[in-house]
Amino acid sequence: MYSYKQLFDFTQEVFLHMGCPAEDAELATEVLLAADLRGIDSHGVARLSGYVRLWEAGRINAKPNIRIVHETPSTATVDGDAGLGLVVAPRAMEIAKKKAEQAGTGWVSVKNSNHFGIAGYHAMMALEKDMIGIAMTNASPLVAPTFSTDRMLGTNPISVAVPANRQPPFVADLATAAAANGKLEILQRKEKKAPLGWIQTKDGQESTNPNELKDGGALLPLGSDRDHGSHKGYALAAVVDILSAVLSGANYGPWVPPFVAFLPVADNLPGEGIGHFLGALRVDAFRPADEFKQHMDNWIETFRSAHVVPGEGAVLIPGDPERLMEEIRMIQGIPLLEPVERDLETLSQRFGIKL
Amino acid sequence: MYSYKQLFDFTQEVFLHMGCPAEDAELATEVLLAADLRGIDSHGVARLSGYVRLWEAGRINAKPNIRIVHETPSTATVDGDAGLGLVVAPRAMEIAKKKAEQAGTGWVSVKNSNHFGIAGYHAMMALEKDMIGIAMTNASPLVAPTFSTDRMLGTNPISVAVPANRQPPFVADLATAAAANGKLEILQRKEKKAPLGWIQTKDGQESTNPNELKDGGALLPLGSDRDHGSHKGYALAAVVDILSAVLSGANYGPWVPPFVAFLPVADNLPGEGIGHFLGALRVDAFRPADEFKQHMDNWIETFRSAHVVPGEGAVLIPGDPERLMEEIRMIQGIPLLEPVERDLETLSQRFGIKL
Repeated sequence: MYSYKQLFDFTQEVFLHMGCPAEDAELATEVLLAADLRGIDSHGVARLSGYVRLWEAGRINAKPNIRIVHETPSTATVDGDAGLGLVVAPRAMEIAKKKAEQAGTGWVSVKNSNHFGIAGYHAMMALEKDMIGIAMTNASPLVAPTFSTDRMLGTNPISVAVPANRQPPFVADLATAAAANGKLEILQRKEKKAPLGWIQTKDGQESTNPNELKDGGALLPLGSDRDHGSHKGYALAAVVDILSAVLSGANYGPWVPPFVAFLPVADNLPGEGIGHFLGALRVDAFRPADEFKQHMDNWIETFRSAHVVPGEGAVLIPGDPERLMEEIRMIQGIPLLEPVERDLETLSQRFGIKL
Repeated sequence: MYSYKQLFDFTQEVFLHMGCPAEDAELATEVLLAADLRGIDSHGVARLSGYVRLWEAGRINAKPNIRIVHETPSTATVDGDAGLGLVVAPRAMEIAKKKAEQAGTGWVSVKNSNHFGIAGYHAMMALEKDMIGIAMTNASPLVAPTFSTDRMLGTNPISVAVPANRQPPFVADLATAAAANGKLEILQRKEKKAPLGWIQTKDGQESTNPNELKDGGALLPLGSDRDHGSHKGYALAAVVDILSAVLSGANYGPWVPPFVAFLPVADNLPGEGIGHFLGALRVDAFRPADEFKQHMDNWIETFRSAHVVPGEGAVLIPGDPERLMEEIRMIQGIPLLEPVERDLETLSQRFGIKL
């Protein structure tokens, strides 16, 4: 078990070692560790050595010149200059919020970025200003469209954060695949089978083997199969890809660069880096914020009071499990799996940074 | 089989009989029949008598004063004055497009409206201006949140339309439930069972009975069960509800008024009518439109060329099936089920309008 502060200090030192400016190193650390705090372990320090390898491969620029390359009163296109997505995305979200202050809403499409951690962090940045925050990103292709055997889309997450008054905020943060890759990794480590409907073989047949991706298989879109709406999950992942990358000038579909540095980047790329799409809507651009937040309290309390299926615990509001986990881990510390611990220890030794 | 013109003339006369101004009757007819043309039969003339009954019950205002009640450069809140959603939504989309021309994007939240037909029609209105269109609406509660036995959300659809160049546009239009109610109605008529994962009993147990809703059961969110991501479908339906209704001042969650006039409207409503959320993003607010549309062609052509699972037909682009159906039905005519035919004949006799 590691304390938040212990992992924060270590991670920050690693980013500083990579050459990130102090402010960027702190921001990237906060974003990365938000995943560990919120229980989305696959997106936190477990990825730190991956970012380092990308930097060593020259695919991450530690001192990016993040800049607006196109704009209107409510929009901007941002070039992340191959920086850490953990830094590029929150900077882009600040631009979206500033646009929203003036124009009611702000929308920023980002190219030439890298993996941005959890989408929820960026969406939640809007809450302090009584704004609704939206964040999405494309990612390296693991998901097959309905009826295809090819991996064409990432697990392309969508997050929407909505402020309330006495209730905590509503925070949806969901991969558009039936199950994110992190869940398969857990099954691999435990040597357990996956439920039918998460993955397919390289020939497009159903499979319960969590290692199927290594044999050319693919993740399935949210909905799992055509009968249960996989064409909807495919369409949602496609929308994320289009808004994040076709709109910004990033790579899309099968061309999205892999997160792991040992996989080559494709030739003849149609864009630059990976793409994000960020939005901020000022609540009072639609109705008075107090009125809205009172109705959000009512919405949340009504859903919390819904009758529960016998044997289940409670009807949850999106964001509840992650917020609870954050409270617990801030007190009890963050557990790391043994391979992640080894990874961090290797970094510690290589860079002479105390863990 | 009915020709498009035959159903168009009849439907238009019915709306005129209700007292709609000529321009509104024509618009409402075009929107309603877009569903029949595109093969979404549950949302077309099959609902005409339902609109008539709502009008007779005083719940639809044939001469609404549709107006902006709040606005900023990129947003507006519209009061639909209890008008037909078929008229209110396209008017609101025009406002979104006008805002986008000035501010880059336009976002309109609508209260005090009624059922708006297919979401895809409204999203596609953006295409002619090289804009990306977004349309969503809440609807009367049929879907249970994950772990709940209560019907708290509608099948709350999301549509996103994206222009391309030599390729036809990308048009996603999806209910956020595993299967929309219209699919259950087809199974009921054919006396067939539903796949597991579409519906649950009133106690929250799995069911294949397409009549389960009549016994207090509920539709399931996209994802079907917790293991396959039903919490994601629930979160998406919730986002649609919040943007469409909590933001605009319409009714939300369990309070959304039923489409069928024989069901009473709840007491102590928290808002007015049902709600929609419409958006328009000018492509050239992010990058030159020609450049974007060339990349959309590339996106679409790449996905069309993906390898197909043996035994399946083709990898489809969202919007393909509906566009093909529109081409076919415009030539061959629109088939109507016998109960729908009877419904229209009754209207024909009552109002003295030739079918």
